[in-house]
Amino acid sequence: EGKLIIFSVLSAKAIRDYIYTFVSRTNTCGELRSAHVGQKVTLYGWVQYQRQGLFLVLRDFHGLTQVIIPQDEVSGHSHVKELLSNAPVESVVRVTGTVSPRPLGQQNPKMPTGDIEVKAETAEILNSCKKLPFEIKDFIKKSEALRMQYRYLDLRSSRLQANLRLRSGVVMRMREYLCNLHGEGLLAGAKEFLVPSREAGKFYSLPQSPQQFKQLLMIGGLDRYFQVARCYRDEGSRPDRQPEFTQIDIEMSFVDQAGIQRLIEGLLQHSWPEDRGSIVTPFPSMTYEEALAEYGTDKPDTRFGMKIVDISDVLRGSNIHFVQNALSYPHGSIRAICIPQGMRYLTNKDLESLKESAKSQFNQCSALGALRLLSADLLEAAGLTLRDPTAFHFLWVVDFPLFLPKAENPTELESAHHPFTAPHPSDASLLYSDPTKVRSQHYDLVLNGNEVGGGSIRIHSAEQQRFVLEKVLKEDSEVLSHLIEALEFGAPPHGGIALGKLLFLLNS
Amino acid sequence: EGKLIIFSVLSAKAIRDYIYTFVSRTNTCGELRSAHVGQKVTLYGWVQYQRQGLFLVLRDFHGLTQVIIPQDEVSGHSHVKELLSNAPVESVVRVTGTVSPRPLGQQNPKMPTGDIEVKAETAEILNSCKKLPFEIKDFIKKSEALRMQYRYLDLRSSRLQANLRLRSGVVMRMREYLCNLHGEGLLAGAKEFLVPSREAGKFYSLPQSPQQFKQLLMIGGLDRYFQVARCYRDEGSRPDRQPEFTQIDIEMSFVDQAGIQRLIEGLLQHSWPEDRGSIVTPFPSMTYEEALAEYGTDKPDTRFGMKIVDISDVLRGSNIHFVQNALSYPHGSIRAICIPQGMRYLTNKDLESLKESAKSQFNQCSALGALRLLSADLLEAAGLTLRDPTAFHFLWVVDFPLFLPKAENPTELESAHHPFTAPHPSDASLLYSDPTKVRSQHYDLVLNGNEVGGGSIRIHSAEQQRFVLEKVLKEDSEVLSHLIEALEFGAPPHGGIALGKLLFLLNS
Repeated sequence: EGKLIIFSVLSAKAIRDYIYTFVSRTNTCGELRSAHVGQKVTLYGWVQYQRQGLFLVLRDFHGLTQVIIPQDEVSGHSHVKELLSNAPVESVVRVTGTVSPRPLGQQNPKMPTGDIEVKAETAEILNSCKKLPFEIKDFIKKSEALRMQYRYLDLRSSRLQANLRLRSGVVMRMREYLCNLHGEGLLAGAKEFLVPSREAGKFYSLPQSPQQFKQLLMIGGLDRYFQVARCYRDEGSRPDRQPEFTQIDIEMSFVDQAGIQRLIEGLLQHSWPEDRGSIVTPFPSMTYEEALAEYGTDKPDTRFGMKIVDISDVLRGSNIHFVQNALSYPHGSIRAICIPQGMRYLTNKDLESLKESAKSQFNQCSALGALRLLSADLLEAAGLTLRDPTAFHFLWVVDFPLFLPKAENPTELESAHHPFTAPHPSDASLLYSDPTKVRSQHYDLVLNGNEVGGGSIRIHSAEQQRFVLEKVLKEDSEVLSHLIEALEFGAPPHGGIALGKLLFLLNS
Repeated sequence: EGKLIIFSVLSAKAIRDYIYTFVSRTNTCGELRSAHVGQKVTLYGWVQYQRQGLFLVLRDFHGLTQVIIPQDEVSGHSHVKELLSNAPVESVVRVTGTVSPRPLGQQNPKMPTGDIEVKAETAEILNSCKKLPFEIKDFIKKSEALRMQYRYLDLRSSRLQANLRLRSGVVMRMREYLCNLHGEGLLAGAKEFLVPSREAGKFYSLPQSPQQFKQLLMIGGLDRYFQVARCYRDEGSRPDRQPEFTQIDIEMSFVDQAGIQRLIEGLLQHSWPEDRGSIVTPFPSMTYEEALAEYGTDKPDTRFGMKIVDISDVLRGSNIHFVQNALSYPHGSIRAICIPQGMRYLTNKDLESLKESAKSQFNQCSALGALRLLSADLLEAAGLTLRDPTAFHFLWVVDFPLFLPKAENPTELESAHHPFTAPHPSDASLLYSDPTKVRSQHYDLVLNGNEVGGGSIRIHSAEQQRFVLEKVLKEDSEVLSHLIEALEFGAPPHGGIALGKLLFLLNS
């Protein structure tokens, strides 16, 4: 039962057309194998390397092929030898020749085309390259400024090309999953930059986030929406921040928290790059409270243990002064992390830096979370591997508080995320009696200690939205009257999520 | 021979999961048929229509289903009757009930679910709708301002929902064709808006077009690039102009004009909506010179004839004064269009307006092209169908001039398109002797008289690029020194195209 959707499959002919007919090559530089021996081929590419007029390595986006420069006296061959021996590195050439097996013992098993070579018969220099400021493979070691100046040379490195391919592949598989399965992909804007128009005094405003627009789309009966949005964040120039990033933004009608979570798990499973191992679903889930208690952060790195444990009861009978002092406060407790093999791996200097870190975060509840990560850094610097860089530990963090006390005035409340987040169904009545206790239907997706996504079920009742804005947040609901009015015209229950940093974390 | 790429096919279970499990419905409102009779189902949707407490029509993004309101005394039914009879139109409801065949004679063959109805057993109002300013189906007739104010209600109309689906489907199929066949999809920017940054006096500049960036990507060895780019054009507010539009932008290395054309034909054939009929490829091709001579425009509507014909020879012997006068000029000629059934369909008033139009365009070579279109308008207003609105006549226009005399000073030349366009290979030497005669490798894609795409093979030689800028266009090549330098570092032969207005023309 259940209908099967078969995606369009293009014919083998269409594919050959696409790869070869549109361009004049017969094969790419990554393609030739022993099975092609004897075939006459035409390759286009860059001269990666050339040795003493004997052979060269030709490179295109698909790979490398070794080309043998003719040494005999056959007519035209001396011209080809002249051309190819003198082509500067990174020149663009066309080579036509015959695929031959490499001589015994000269095969290169590390190279996909390492069983063959192409004996050049004719050749043409399509564009000669002037002297490079650096070798392509060395670019990655150079300064950011130099890499930017010659970005088109930097991009020729295998690492950057692999990252672009990876990203393109993952995003396309995400689109397949979301779009071909009855989603609707729309394109929208990004952040609240003001853009001057040609009419003096008038501006375009780029939206801060598509939040309200995607809610309005659901009210417009669109059922599902996603976009792959290019976002720009105006944070000034901080070296560790990307002002430009890509976000997968999703909104659905008639959905609950579990529904969004299962969708994202399916999406990631479908689009995950094969060479990064498979993903196990469903992802584990942890409440905000548990995350803070056990990891000292709302984005725990669950690749390693060293959880925070409460040792108050163990120490209650002790006569250590500072312990008794701490326990004398209301809710006072003693918490610890156990550092495995700490005695063996941590030096006195390490212990000093842990103490300094603890002091500098005195009285901050995230102090133990930071100490846990610092301890891991120190252990790893000493040679222990705690956090496998090839492991991907996904985690849902749920049951965030809906409101938090304002930092500047703790008697007033502000939204923990945004004012459109719906309260947890079990806490709906607390909204009216004790809003500080209300948990929300917000969820974060955490990967190896990074927040890679976040979303919520939204408020769809105009009355509830008005109460949150006016009575809890003490804000002027007039500013959002357009949204509240829309909620009055048959808004369906809806929710969504945005995946941000994920693509970036996949780069090598 | 030739490898076959099979796109990922999701299992039937995954698809059911996606459509149903993530949300609480068992079926969509567009799905139930006679085969479902007897099944218990849960539907979510909007109340499209309700009649006298007897039945209602429930709508979601997928279709309509008739729901029978219970009239009997079974426990709970009177509550359901009460709820559903009083739910205002456009309220959001959940209905659970049993699929039943409609009574004989009450089937509706125009409705995909017209053989069945759902007998409601339980129901819930998820959100009540306040009184609508207009019925949903009437929105489309209202003023633009009102439609914009209540855009989320306007979007609930079947026509707007169909346009969004169509667009989403076409763009996705384009991505399949371009991306799954070894293209690389990257996201990039749009036009040269200046965006203030948070540092006073510093601005972000949004690029006018990705032209130079995509050329640099090819120089970076990326082989192929495409993007579905959202573009913003700051043209002030003209009612017939969309400031925001979507463009499919493509660039390829080692490609020629024919290669780009075959790619686009394959792309459109793959992604064309089935219900608009099929596309025949290759598309016909016409030179710029032929287009001007036969249609008086470089974007001919080839759905109908009425071509411009040269009747100079026929009239050379006549003694009509104005004819002889015209022929006495160098290159003087008499040209005409023959209006089929013009005598029968055109009134004196029509003939007057043709005369007026001709006078107002005296001495403009496009005058006959405009007269041809005006004649077609007049004939169609009189009831003749010349231009089938369901026909799609694609046409390549090629061999444009590379340079045109400047309007303000005809002794100087400017680029007909942009200074990166390569000369026609047969005319390359004319570049140095008589640049006015050089044809370019620019090509336009025309659909029913609209320019829907344009592109070119680009200059890949630094020396040729410098010559065009400095010697032909008399421009300061310093401004483009970054591009010229990049061309010196092994730029491959490359070219591209952008499809613009196409998606818009598909809307109904």
